[in-house]
Amino acid sequence: MTNKRKIINDPVHGFLTIEDDIIYDIIEHPYFQRQRHIKQLGFSYLVYPGTVHTRFAHMLGALNLMGRALDVLKVKGVEITPDEALGVKIAILLHDVGHGPFSHTSECVLADVHHETLTRLFMERLNHQMGGQLTTAIRIFEDSYPKRFLHQLVSSQLDMDRLDYLNRDSFFSGVSEGIVGIDRIINMLNVVHDELVVDEKGIYSIEKFIISRRLMYWQVYLHKTVVAADVLLLAILRRAKELLATGHKLGGSDELLLFLSHNYKEVDFERDPQLLEAFALLDDSDIMSAVKSWMLHSTDPILHRLCENLVNRRLSRIRIANHPFGADTIEELHHKATELYGLKTGESSYFVTTGVLENHAYSFNDQEIMVRFKDGHCLDISEASDQLDRRFLEKTVTKYYVYYPRDYKQ
Amino acid sequence: MTNKRKIINDPVHGFLTIEDDIIYDIIEHPYFQRQRHIKQLGFSYLVYPGTVHTRFAHMLGALNLMGRALDVLKVKGVEITPDEALGVKIAILLHDVGHGPFSHTSECVLADVHHETLTRLFMERLNHQMGGQLTTAIRIFEDSYPKRFLHQLVSSQLDMDRLDYLNRDSFFSGVSEGIVGIDRIINMLNVVHDELVVDEKGIYSIEKFIISRRLMYWQVYLHKTVVAADVLLLAILRRAKELLATGHKLGGSDELLLFLSHNYKEVDFERDPQLLEAFALLDDSDIMSAVKSWMLHSTDPILHRLCENLVNRRLSRIRIANHPFGADTIEELHHKATELYGLKTGESSYFVTTGVLENHAYSFNDQEIMVRFKDGHCLDISEASDQLDRRFLEKTVTKYYVYYPRDYKQ
Amino acid sequence: MTNKRKIINDPVHGFLTIEDDIIYDIIEHPYFQRQRHIKQLGFSYLVYPGTVHTRFAHMLGALNLMGRALDVLKVKGVEITPDEALGVKIAILLHDVGHGPFSHTSECVLADVHHETLTRLFMERLNHQMGGQLTTAIRIFEDSYPKRFLHQLVSSQLDMDRLDYLNRDSFFSGVSEGIVGIDRIINMLNVVHDELVVDEKGIYSIEKFIISRRLMYWQVYLHKTVVAADVLLLAILRRAKELLATGHKLGGSDELLLFLSHNYKEVDFERDPQLLEAFALLDDSDIMSAVKSWMLHSTDPILHRLCENLVNRRLSRIRIANHPFGADTIEELHHKATELYGLKTGESSYFVTTGVLENHAYSFNDQEIMVRFKDGHCLDISEASDQLDRRFLEKTVTKYYVYYPRDYKQ
Amino acid sequence: MTNKRKIINDPVHGFLTIEDDIIYDIIEHPYFQRQRHIKQLGFSYLVYPGTVHTRFAHMLGALNLMGRALDVLKVKGVEITPDEALGVKIAILLHDVGHGPFSHTSECVLADVHHETLTRLFMERLNHQMGGQLTTAIRIFEDSYPKRFLHQLVSSQLDMDRLDYLNRDSFFSGVSEGIVGIDRIINMLNVVHDELVVDEKGIYSIEKFIISRRLMYWQVYLHKTVVAADVLLLAILRRAKELLATGHKLGGSDELLLFLSHNYKEVDFERDPQLLEAFALLDDSDIMSAVKSWMLHSTDPILHRLCENLVNRRLSRIRIANHPFGADTIEELHHKATELYGLKTGESSYFVTTGVLENHAYSFNDQEIMVRFKDGHCLDISEASDQLDRRFLEKTVTKYYVYYPRDYKQ
Repeated sequence: MTNKRKIINDPVHGFLTIEDDIIYDIIEHPYFQRQRHIKQLGFSYLVYPGTVHTRFAHMLGALNLMGRALDVLKVKGVEITPDEALGVKIAILLHDVGHGPFSHTSECVLADVHHETLTRLFMERLNHQMGGQLTTAIRIFEDSYPKRFLHQLVSSQLDMDRLDYLNRDSFFSGVSEGIVGIDRIINMLNVVHDELVVDEKGIYSIEKFIISRRLMYWQVYLHKTVVAADVLLLAILRRAKELLATGHKLGGSDELLLFLSHNYKEVDFERDPQLLEAFALLDDSDIMSAVKSWMLHSTDPILHRLCENLVNRRLSRIRIANHPFGADTIEELHHKATELYGLKTGESSYFVTTGVLENHAYSFNDQEIMVRFKDGHCLDISEASDQLDRRFLEKTVTKYYVYYPRDYKQ
Repeated sequence: MTNKRKIINDPVHGFLTIEDDIIYDIIEHPYFQRQRHIKQLGFSYLVYPGTVHTRFAHMLGALNLMGRALDVLKVKGVEITPDEALGVKIAILLHDVGHGPFSHTSECVLADVHHETLTRLFMERLNHQMGGQLTTAIRIFEDSYPKRFLHQLVSSQLDMDRLDYLNRDSFFSGVSEGIVGIDRIINMLNVVHDELVVDEKGIYSIEKFIISRRLMYWQVYLHKTVVAADVLLLAILRRAKELLATGHKLGGSDELLLFLSHNYKEVDFERDPQLLEAFALLDDSDIMSAVKSWMLHSTDPILHRLCENLVNRRLSRIRIANHPFGADTIEELHHKATELYGLKTGESSYFVTTGVLENHAYSFNDQEIMVRFKDGHCLDISEASDQLDRRFLEKTVTKYYVYYPRDYKQ
Repeated sequence: MTNKRKIINDPVHGFLTIEDDIIYDIIEHPYFQRQRHIKQLGFSYLVYPGTVHTRFAHMLGALNLMGRALDVLKVKGVEITPDEALGVKIAILLHDVGHGPFSHTSECVLADVHHETLTRLFMERLNHQMGGQLTTAIRIFEDSYPKRFLHQLVSSQLDMDRLDYLNRDSFFSGVSEGIVGIDRIINMLNVVHDELVVDEKGIYSIEKFIISRRLMYWQVYLHKTVVAADVLLLAILRRAKELLATGHKLGGSDELLLFLSHNYKEVDFERDPQLLEAFALLDDSDIMSAVKSWMLHSTDPILHRLCENLVNRRLSRIRIANHPFGADTIEELHHKATELYGLKTGESSYFVTTGVLENHAYSFNDQEIMVRFKDGHCLDISEASDQLDRRFLEKTVTKYYVYYPRDYKQ
Repeated sequence: MTNKRKIINDPVHGFLTIEDDIIYDIIEHPYFQRQRHIKQLGFSYLVYPGTVHTRFAHMLGALNLMGRALDVLKVKGVEITPDEALGVKIAILLHDVGHGPFSHTSECVLADVHHETLTRLFMERLNHQMGGQLTTAIRIFEDSYPKRFLHQLVSSQLDMDRLDYLNRDSFFSGVSEGIVGIDRIINMLNVVHDELVVDEKGIYSIEKFIISRRLMYWQVYLHKTVVAADVLLLAILRRAKELLATGHKLGGSDELLLFLSHNYKEVDFERDPQLLEAFALLDDSDIMSAVKSWMLHSTDPILHRLCENLVNRRLSRIRIANHPFGADTIEELHHKATELYGLKTGESSYFVTTGVLENHAYSFNDQEIMVRFKDGHCLDISEASDQLDRRFLEKTVTKYYVYYPRDYKQ
């Protein structure tokens, strides 16, 4: 009835135009609006104060890039039906809808389900509510749709998700190193034998894209202060679950407590439709208010201490090395923590944690990025590029961290 | 002991350098860290998804501009002692520290105290904790320090606060119209007879600054969707207070409920030091979790409906006009709302509201912006400018709004 | 035969895509390529070193905006045939093709013909060479095509020319004050009764656009150093013409000397086709090399001195006032110059010049900018805007300058 | 007497402030002003229309970065005397002052002298004129000043020259891939044992800087259209020299003809002071006007054809390969060109050229970039970096090109 055409200001890409009614309706849906209150980068804002941008904005941005990619492909003669165009746009719009508060940090803690599974559950629920209009989108998302390149636009080493988030995270963090030549990459997209490829002229931009992504990982996503905050939040949630399991009463929203008191699996979500509705009510504010409440009111000294550390940003030390830390070192850290805080056996694991950080610029197991030369033949970027050879790309950088209280005398 | 020099990435101004230990300590203080969770622009993100930036980032940005302004003034021979430089930097850093969640919207609802008063209370508390190091800052903030231009850098029609927020809000909203030539304005600052002035060459930039500010008001700050959300939140808080006053039980953090259950005044804050500590625990997440909780669990149908409307962004209609709406019109809207929702007398005021939006580009009552000509004489910008004459500047634009349920048949 | 689709990197608008073969061919034509060597802003680079951008880039930028405007209008249901779309794109692409070196400065000095006339002559010549493919473009350019809004897109108070040059000049000068919200304005374009209008939501952007344009005039285009250089170049060309007229020999390219030795009028260009070809060979380098050559080798002391002043940037003083300078003042300046340089009667006019600078933000005589309200009625921006009333817009700012040697003892 | 403090708008870095009188005087000097008319990137504008920025702007930009670097180093306790600070600023300001028109292309053709030698000659001449005020600057430039890090700021793998030009060229070309995090790099600079180093936290930015530089080479500086234009201009200048040597008369400025008619060496410049003055009069416009003149008036068919190709941008084909082209292939191309244009023996070398393009991201022979770790020890970036190992950095990419007429039937 009313014209739903809508224009949204985005500081990264400029004006975003929403033209399809169904897309407008999805955006208006509470499942989607919820992402307004989930930060794209979790605790990165502790290091980069500008990075409080939301998943909501990222998903709209990725939708915008998809529209531009489709335009380019159509001009180059790639056949894309209106149903497919709409499907792939819905698929990218919803590709992250299953994320919970603090995204990756809380994943598998609030529920023992991967965020992609939750995304699929949300998409199916929406499809049901909207009379089957998301069927093509779901098939593309799940990679069961015949034209494979459509799935690759949504999820591959060169998808619209990555193109948007690299530039967006770079924009909001002020780390100019992450800027990617989106315009050029999108203009160089093409399809050969049903596979998404990049025209030869785009090689340099792809190289830059791979490097940028790698650097953003170490400079922003895996920054040690961010890792320290993630580790701390995980410890908090773990402790809260344990307390709840042993009959403790804790403050916090009913939905958060529901998920912390159970260990729901995919099958539970399928059995009980209300579970997804409850999950859809969670956002970053549930976590942050609970943490504040536990800091103030929890009678458990461990939970109290952990929450106080997060609220007042008294993060523990984190040491990062290229090799695993020795068992002796770790044992001693546990020992010290136990003494320092007067802990019981096993409790030091809330304060001392080890883990692994990994990043590889490019994966040879995933769908590789193919480059199409003028004469029509295609090569993987690692062969097409003068700059990036396989040795470089293959290298998975692995680092080891150990996290332990700042208050140790050393 | 440790070197506290710190560099922070800011997407708006680039690198911010923190050089003074005391400033570093203030930033680390929970009173200041709290502002990480208070959005600078409240509900503007409903229209401009990028505007989720925080007061924390704004305050650091304003500090940065102050440092640049001081450098310029010193080069021009204005005498500023180290104590004064530090004082004016602390004053700008803390100028907004008294803001509560959703800033202007909740002001005087959570406590019957103006945010500037709260700012002063926080500054005094910090001064006490830090052994009197904020004394000069407080005197500058309160305008009781002899060199008046220092106060004007913190609070006047051309202060570092405005310079930062106009550019910052423009950056995050994507509304390029609000961009202000900060570099030029700061480089043109000067001091004559203890008053902050702008050198003649900066006239055009000042004109643009005044216009930009005016336009940002109408395009962003007073956007009708934002106003509608503000009005709705106010109605929610008002209803919650009324319910609490009549013995209703409501969910929400203890601190939020404390402030909603009382009507604290300045004198209360002075009497009971704990009150300020409790206020310092409030941020946007307290409001958003409470609203979600009340939507789900409140037995009061009015509070339930109001909260549901906010969470699901079903904002009511808002009509804006250049003249006040007639009593008849308003009465009919109340009448309709009463019927539509089956309300009791007086309850329609939660759904139908009228109000006034006002903006004047420039105020003749405040300290005027003075322009210094090459020959040394000074004129007010309204006389100095060819473009902006007094008739234009004086004009206060006043608009009237009425807010009423979307569900009316019309 | 070959695919002519081409992508050009533009730092202002990003990627420019050339899709039509005829447009590609026009761009490749020497008449158009010539604009690579004509600076958009003449001597502005003396004040803003970044402003060496060319008319070539501006014309491509305006073409790009036209493409986006056409897309928006088509989505809104405005009927535009492929022939019209191509025509209006060619018209904007070529709208400035008649400019000579140093554009406005040398206009009517090299030939007594307005640049729009030369543009028309070039368009007709191209139309002839390209088998009539520019017929629609010429009719649109001349405003003889039935759908008037097409002409308005090319030339009106809100044409693609202005939208491009304001942002481009702002970008290259670093004067952020001139930035205009192009995206928003273009998205708000519409057509009512065959007139180009702006949808109501675009009001603030239009206001900002008018203000920005006004400010760019005073801050960049009419900056006094730029005016001084313009005045000096004019004096040089005038002197060179006089010398050539009296049989002096001067260095310089044959084409430049041809035009300086005659006073060609439109009728001459129509009579002799070679004249336009000769004009098409002129660019900024002809002027700059001639000036250097005259500085080094001219035996005329006046020409020598004028050229030396320009090459070494020893510009004379320029005084600007709101009222005309008195006859006495001017006479004395002439007198002093005559003495200082030992001039003959009349020669002081090369060193002392008076003139008028004028700018009006908005013209009531031209096609006014119309705003379309939701209910369909239209108002002129001066009535539609709260901010800009007619009194403000009407005000033509007029300034008077006098230009005289720096070497006077004062 | 008058305050020479000056502010210049730069679109890349914002406001540039000139504070030292001597620097102001150098900028005003004709030797320096000449660089206003020499494009930083020669023919790149044929591919990237925005890249018409000048060496003048680059040199001011590098000066600005030097000022910021000095501030950072001073804060970190590096001792730099006022004389050294001024010296290193003058050195960077003048580091490119010896470039002739079309910089690298015409180097050693107009005079058989490297541009750094010419820079030194200009600096000495200025030093003489300015009473020895440039002595420290010259010693720093020549690397004979004791504190080596000062020279490294001017010329090394991480100097202010590169930092400025990478960002500047990226800005004006619109190739966002080249953007470098200048702020971060400069903030991470430090000095250890008199060597310029980068603090550990800057590793990622250095990696990005090396990659960006490499990519800018292939995407912009060595773009094949740019190479083709360079090759063509060289052929033109070579032909012109040959014609002049055999007594031909050619148009063009006296200074250009002077240098084309001789083969001046360093010793000539030292013997005859007037030679440097003549060289100081050359800029891009001398070349462009001469080429236009030779196209129109030269009686030599080869020079005529070459010039016409350049003016009308009918560049020849250029084929680029990873291996040298076979002698047979090249011979055949020469043969075809000879036939096509009816050339005499040897003349085909104006139309068929082979050459080598080389780029290495990083040189192990030059001063390496050292990274300083928290514990004080230093490592070369190739060892310090996880991402860039020596194998990658060492790789010099070499490509071979052959250039031949477009008009061949193939």
